[in-house]
Amino acid sequence: MSAIGRSRGIHYLQKLSAANIPSDLIEKGQSRVIDASLTLIREKAKLKGELVRALGGSLASTSLLGVPLGHNSSFLQGPAFAPPRIREAMWCGSTNSTTEEGKELKDPRVLTDVGDLAVQEIRDCGVDDDRLMNVVSESVKIVMEEDPLRPLVLGGDHSISYPVVRAVSQKLGGPVDILHLDAHPDIYDAFEGNKYSHASPFARIMEGGYARRLLQVGIRSINSEGREQGKRFGVEQYEMRTFSRDRHFLEHLVSLFLIFFSLVFFTWLTCFHSSTSLHKIFCLRIED
Amino acid sequence: MSAIGRSRGIHYLQKLSAANIPSDLIEKGQSRVIDASLTLIREKAKLKGELVRALGGSLASTSLLGVPLGHNSSFLQGPAFAPPRIREAMWCGSTNSTTEEGKELKDPRVLTDVGDLAVQEIRDCGVDDDRLMNVVSESVKIVMEEDPLRPLVLGGDHSISYPVVRAVSQKLGGPVDILHLDAHPDIYDAFEGNKYSHASPFARIMEGGYARRLLQVGIRSINSEGREQGKRFGVEQYEMRTFSRDRHFLEHLVSLFLIFFSLVFFTWLTCFHSSTSLHKIFCLRIED
Amino acid sequence: MSAIGRSRGIHYLQKLSAANIPSDLIEKGQSRVIDASLTLIREKAKLKGELVRALGGSLASTSLLGVPLGHNSSFLQGPAFAPPRIREAMWCGSTNSTTEEGKELKDPRVLTDVGDLAVQEIRDCGVDDDRLMNVVSESVKIVMEEDPLRPLVLGGDHSISYPVVRAVSQKLGGPVDILHLDAHPDIYDAFEGNKYSHASPFARIMEGGYARRLLQVGIRSINSEGREQGKRFGVEQYEMRTFSRDRHFLEHLVSLFLIFFSLVFFTWLTCFHSSTSLHKIFCLRIED
Amino acid sequence: MSAIGRSRGIHYLQKLSAANIPSDLIEKGQSRVIDASLTLIREKAKLKGELVRALGGSLASTSLLGVPLGHNSSFLQGPAFAPPRIREAMWCGSTNSTTEEGKELKDPRVLTDVGDLAVQEIRDCGVDDDRLMNVVSESVKIVMEEDPLRPLVLGGDHSISYPVVRAVSQKLGGPVDILHLDAHPDIYDAFEGNKYSHASPFARIMEGGYARRLLQVGIRSINSEGREQGKRFGVEQYEMRTFSRDRHFLEHLVSLFLIFFSLVFFTWLTCFHSSTSLHKIFCLRIED
Amino acid sequence: MSAIGRSRGIHYLQKLSAANIPSDLIEKGQSRVIDASLTLIREKAKLKGELVRALGGSLASTSLLGVPLGHNSSFLQGPAFAPPRIREAMWCGSTNSTTEEGKELKDPRVLTDVGDLAVQEIRDCGVDDDRLMNVVSESVKIVMEEDPLRPLVLGGDHSISYPVVRAVSQKLGGPVDILHLDAHPDIYDAFEGNKYSHASPFARIMEGGYARRLLQVGIRSINSEGREQGKRFGVEQYEMRTFSRDRHFLEHLVSLFLIFFSLVFFTWLTCFHSSTSLHKIFCLRIED
Amino acid sequence: MSAIGRSRGIHYLQKLSAANIPSDLIEKGQSRVIDASLTLIREKAKLKGELVRALGGSLASTSLLGVPLGHNSSFLQGPAFAPPRIREAMWCGSTNSTTEEGKELKDPRVLTDVGDLAVQEIRDCGVDDDRLMNVVSESVKIVMEEDPLRPLVLGGDHSISYPVVRAVSQKLGGPVDILHLDAHPDIYDAFEGNKYSHASPFARIMEGGYARRLLQVGIRSINSEGREQGKRFGVEQYEMRTFSRDRHFLEHLVSLFLIFFSLVFFTWLTCFHSSTSLHKIFCLRIED
Repeated sequence: MSAIGRSRGIHYLQKLSAANIPSDLIEKGQSRVIDASLTLIREKAKLKGELVRALGGSLASTSLLGVPLGHNSSFLQGPAFAPPRIREAMWCGSTNSTTEEGKELKDPRVLTDVGDLAVQEIRDCGVDDDRLMNVVSESVKIVMEEDPLRPLVLGGDHSISYPVVRAVSQKLGGPVDILHLDAHPDIYDAFEGNKYSHASPFARIMEGGYARRLLQVGIRSINSEGREQGKRFGVEQYEMRTFSRDRHFLEHLVSLFLIFFSLVFFTWLTCFHSSTSLHKIFCLRIED
Repeated sequence: MSAIGRSRGIHYLQKLSAANIPSDLIEKGQSRVIDASLTLIREKAKLKGELVRALGGSLASTSLLGVPLGHNSSFLQGPAFAPPRIREAMWCGSTNSTTEEGKELKDPRVLTDVGDLAVQEIRDCGVDDDRLMNVVSESVKIVMEEDPLRPLVLGGDHSISYPVVRAVSQKLGGPVDILHLDAHPDIYDAFEGNKYSHASPFARIMEGGYARRLLQVGIRSINSEGREQGKRFGVEQYEMRTFSRDRHFLEHLVSLFLIFFSLVFFTWLTCFHSSTSLHKIFCLRIED
Repeated sequence: MSAIGRSRGIHYLQKLSAANIPSDLIEKGQSRVIDASLTLIREKAKLKGELVRALGGSLASTSLLGVPLGHNSSFLQGPAFAPPRIREAMWCGSTNSTTEEGKELKDPRVLTDVGDLAVQEIRDCGVDDDRLMNVVSESVKIVMEEDPLRPLVLGGDHSISYPVVRAVSQKLGGPVDILHLDAHPDIYDAFEGNKYSHASPFARIMEGGYARRLLQVGIRSINSEGREQGKRFGVEQYEMRTFSRDRHFLEHLVSLFLIFFSLVFFTWLTCFHSSTSLHKIFCLRIED
Repeated sequence: MSAIGRSRGIHYLQKLSAANIPSDLIEKGQSRVIDASLTLIREKAKLKGELVRALGGSLASTSLLGVPLGHNSSFLQGPAFAPPRIREAMWCGSTNSTTEEGKELKDPRVLTDVGDLAVQEIRDCGVDDDRLMNVVSESVKIVMEEDPLRPLVLGGDHSISYPVVRAVSQKLGGPVDILHLDAHPDIYDAFEGNKYSHASPFARIMEGGYARRLLQVGIRSINSEGREQGKRFGVEQYEMRTFSRDRHFLEHLVSLFLIFFSLVFFTWLTCFHSSTSLHKIFCLRIED
Repeated sequence: MSAIGRSRGIHYLQKLSAANIPSDLIEKGQSRVIDASLTLIREKAKLKGELVRALGGSLASTSLLGVPLGHNSSFLQGPAFAPPRIREAMWCGSTNSTTEEGKELKDPRVLTDVGDLAVQEIRDCGVDDDRLMNVVSESVKIVMEEDPLRPLVLGGDHSISYPVVRAVSQKLGGPVDILHLDAHPDIYDAFEGNKYSHASPFARIMEGGYARRLLQVGIRSINSEGREQGKRFGVEQYEMRTFSRDRHFLEHLVSLFLIFFSLVFFTWLTCFHSSTSLHKIFCLRIED
Repeated sequence: MSAIGRSRGIHYLQKLSAANIPSDLIEKGQSRVIDASLTLIREKAKLKGELVRALGGSLASTSLLGVPLGHNSSFLQGPAFAPPRIREAMWCGSTNSTTEEGKELKDPRVLTDVGDLAVQEIRDCGVDDDRLMNVVSESVKIVMEEDPLRPLVLGGDHSISYPVVRAVSQKLGGPVDILHLDAHPDIYDAFEGNKYSHASPFARIMEGGYARRLLQVGIRSINSEGREQGKRFGVEQYEMRTFSRDRHFLEHLVSLFLIFFSLVFFTWLTCFHSSTSLHKIFCLRIED
């Protein structure tokens, strides 16, 4: 677990047992801070949703939602700083806001932004990860409530895949199908003892029953625990070393996924994985 | 004025006059987002204040308040990203949290943190600088209401000196004395046409009557407008080229200031000036 | 328009209207500086041409001509510093001067260099872009006069495509065919109000009738103005999103171009596009 | 001697003895290129001089003259790229053009610029250092001929101190007094066999009789050859290890120098020493 | 030849002829230092060998052997620092020690390490390259003596290919077949006069009869000397410009090589080529 | 404790208890590797000592001894890579090997080098810190045995102060006086549970009775444990916040130290402290 935010302020008092502070004082304060954090997301989403609907709306409008969380990475923790940097790159002077298809990214009917969840503010109040993960799920649901907004999550480390997928599943009323592109399966039961580790989200997702089908494509680095967990949860794992053999099947599969996306509707979630300079995109298809 | 946040989303619609959106829809949404932003600061401050008071409190407890704002800089706009980076450096693994005087910075009676004001979220909703500067002032006042917290503002560019000083003056009921250490007087009437420019805050402070006395020490780069504005507002400007002559007087003066700080109470405001790699500290002394 | 070179020296006087200087004094001085700049290119080209001819010459000898011009870029302006850096990389200790085909780049029959046009010196004298673009064209023609030298232009931003192509067309007595490889069409009428913008050279080239046929291959970022200008000037635009469809046709086309190059003669112009870390090569084929 | 510019083009032919080229072809070409290079400096200086005189002139106007030469450095050769980088830093967006004394650097009566001598173009034509050093001297004299311009030389490595001082001495009709601030005496007879080395300019200056008095202040790194050469030429060498002893004398001496500068007139030459990240300023005082 | 290690200490004395030191004093000392260096490698290899054998051993266990040698590079000499940096990257916090095939790199039956040969210590004693190359060969043989260890050499510049291949050939009793993947043939007789240059190892290998067959694949930069040396030694050179033509043949050939590797046994030698940011892997197949 | 070198190879086996390896096999192997490491230092020192003595010797000749050890740092562990980098900087092309006093550093009578202790090789064999610290002490003693060599230790983290001082004290037959310049007292009993931590060497030195007098000058960061340990061991601690008060006394004291150094003899130990970009020099004075 990260030392940042864990050894000072409220945590400092808890560790020293030096404080004779009524525990409900802290708990009530934490709840009020969490409520205020979610209210800020809700009000941003509400304004953006009203705006898009007033403009005649669209079938689905991508909405950025930043989750600046990095403490569940076992290596570098840069994802905690990623969301404003991603936005900076998106709107940089050398960026052209017109897509290849001719869409104008500056138009709120195409892309909106509901800002960052106040993750560091919440952690600084001594909130633990059980509760924090619920707050992340709530923030995703809040965006989904403002039809036609669809969240595109920026950051943090891979641990947020769990609360994000859980929120989508709960909001839509059933397990989703996941196409997971990554070199690692991220399915340890509890990596280095942390069940919310960036190496464990898919163990949580599968345990919770939030996925009907999980395809992991591109696996390069998997050990016996990864294989056993995969078997246990019925994950379909495609490793790079057999990619040329599986390619035809996978391309066919992805085409099917994409057809569904176009015909029905979709939520596209991206986690920028700054700790390894890769980025990981996973897509969720939802039943009608 | 910065292009970031000024050419997309709501701004995009306003510029194109393409939207037939009722203006009160936008205005009401902006107000709700601003309220939520200030509520988040308030709840963080309330929890921290309750905590310090429950611990027996202190005469004054420094409280970090981040203002990630950089768009009023006429050059680099890095201060918009500064507050989390400053906290990262403060709590980095090589930092020793014990001061030379033996104070423990991890103890909330010494240092607390109320997080960052959601500046980018507010600007993204199309809120202009007149209103934004009021929000900055409000955030400072909110911290001061939670006795014994005293705000130490992190970031942004120098333009925030104006709303911060205004808040302190209004909260304390009268103009303050300012010791301003900088190579520039930052007193242009409206630098490059922007009255909220990082080069203009002291013009706004003096016009508003928020300072009883303004001492600017260390001036290296001043032109005729800087000198005329100084004369007009009765600023006491000490340039570096006459520093050896004025040194004795200034050292005596600073000692007086510091005695006041120790005897009475103080608010210490720091603006990290990332655009020029310098940092600028100004201190406010308040009448008894 | 760039602030560098536009707010000091002669420009400073013009802006302030503070100077009572006879305008013909400045104009005559500018003309003499321009003449001297072109004379330096001419003498370098003459010496290199005499040398190659004395050695028995070659059918065509590539000759480097640097144009250190960056002020027409709307983003970073590094191309103004590019030519000496490109030469430094070419002759660096780790570079092997023998090509895959066995040609020795150190041999002046293969590659010569006529140095850099004094772009900054000319701009510093208050010369505007109308005139500067003529000077760039002149410098290219001067190299072409020294048979068998063929100019390979180093730097600057894309705005120089216009004067370079114009020079080649005028020198050869008719419009040329252009294969333009780029992600952008660079065909705005006047990007951000600047008709010499790095985003506008092909509008100028087509208006001037300097191209018989313009093929733009690799387009990724094009908006409605780009498409309309393309249609207006009869440009053949091939976008990356249809590349797999067009590939066969384009490869066939390029082979044709290359056969012409080998059979007849060619001028090869390269613009290093430092602002986006890409480089853009376009080739001109000339009628017999 | 630097490999850059010494193993390709004309040098390549000379080395291989492969070319049967009449030597006067090359010599005449070199002369024409040198003439054109100096003409460009002359025309720039003439225009700037006319301008300053038309404005009522000043007693002395500093004029930048770039000498992008680095091949005589025995280590890094960055000074060959320095002049445009220095100008970029001077006119950068964060620079304030008003001095502490209130002078406006944008005003040509205060500061002008005659551009860079085409050092690389000349070297590329096979011109050797004997002749190149003469060209540097000529360029300095050309600026001094345009009263009231006074050259401030930008770059290159320290080897140019010799041709610059020689030019000033010859132009003024007698040896000058030199205050040389440096950690090294730069007075080897021929460092690594190169009599134009950046470690040897003061040997050349003293041999030529271009200095009446040479004070070297700040010496930290001197060996027996440095001491013997100092003795041989009557140099006054002040080492840092005895600085506290000599300080009073030196400060008195510098004041005298500065009084002369103010009363009479002066030429101020600066060499940015990029190879060691230091910069070296030496001043010349001239007899009435 | 590199100046580092060549102009100080013992070399300094030799150059100055200032020392009246009995030459056998130096020679005996050098021999003792070389013996101690090899003893350290031997003891490390012995311990690792005993360990693997006690564990039941494996058919072949890869063993890292660092050779921090960079002075035979004609450009950057970073390979002298490479081995500890490679190990740092191998065991970095973001590295996964499980391979795609499920092997655990932390297990000494899979990978061991015998440390670095003390190259700099030996050179500092005035040992020349003739003798140093013998020491490198000895170090490789020492590892091969500890069955089942097989050396995987880390660093230095390409010059070490010669002593490494020689050692393998001598140890196995006959010439080996080499598949050499590189953009350069590295077969100059003596590049810049240095017969141990990083550009010459394959000349030494072929002269010594240490290779039965040498396939060079990927050649991009070859001049007449490279082609003549190739012809002289019967090297099979495949250039990139004909790669598409030769591809089928080469892929077939590599498959054959790999089958041998799996069936019999192999030694895998990798040279990280830090001077050009490429890396070069060559594989040795040995007859039964 | 560092993860590097603690979770692989022999450590991997020990952790897993998977190995049924006779413990004396490992112990004997470790002893032989340690012996070989010290023999290499001894032979290098012997050769250098013989050389200096054959040259007529000197009263004391500084001899570099590298200790590439960084795992006892609680933050960055760069000191493990420091010794070769320090040598690279010492002999870099821009370095002048003549000191201000005229001494020639290339002359072995002034400066010799016995190379690096094979710290990583020893640790990789599973040797723990108790034994490793003894090996460091042995290496220092070995250098001191070769009169007139005096060790100047390069690297690693501050933990090596303990074995180095211990060696000097044991070799000289009694406790030494230490002037320790640092911002931290490095006197924790066992920082983060590690008694060999870089924050604890002076606790070990004082417990062992290796110092007669310990002056710590420059302390900026000290907490209650630091003060109590100081009191317990009778350390004379001078903090920076009272430096102006203590300055006169300290300068007098240092002069005394330096006189002793000049009159008698000295050993100068430097630890480059790369983890905090500071460097720390401490000097040992030895009784007559």
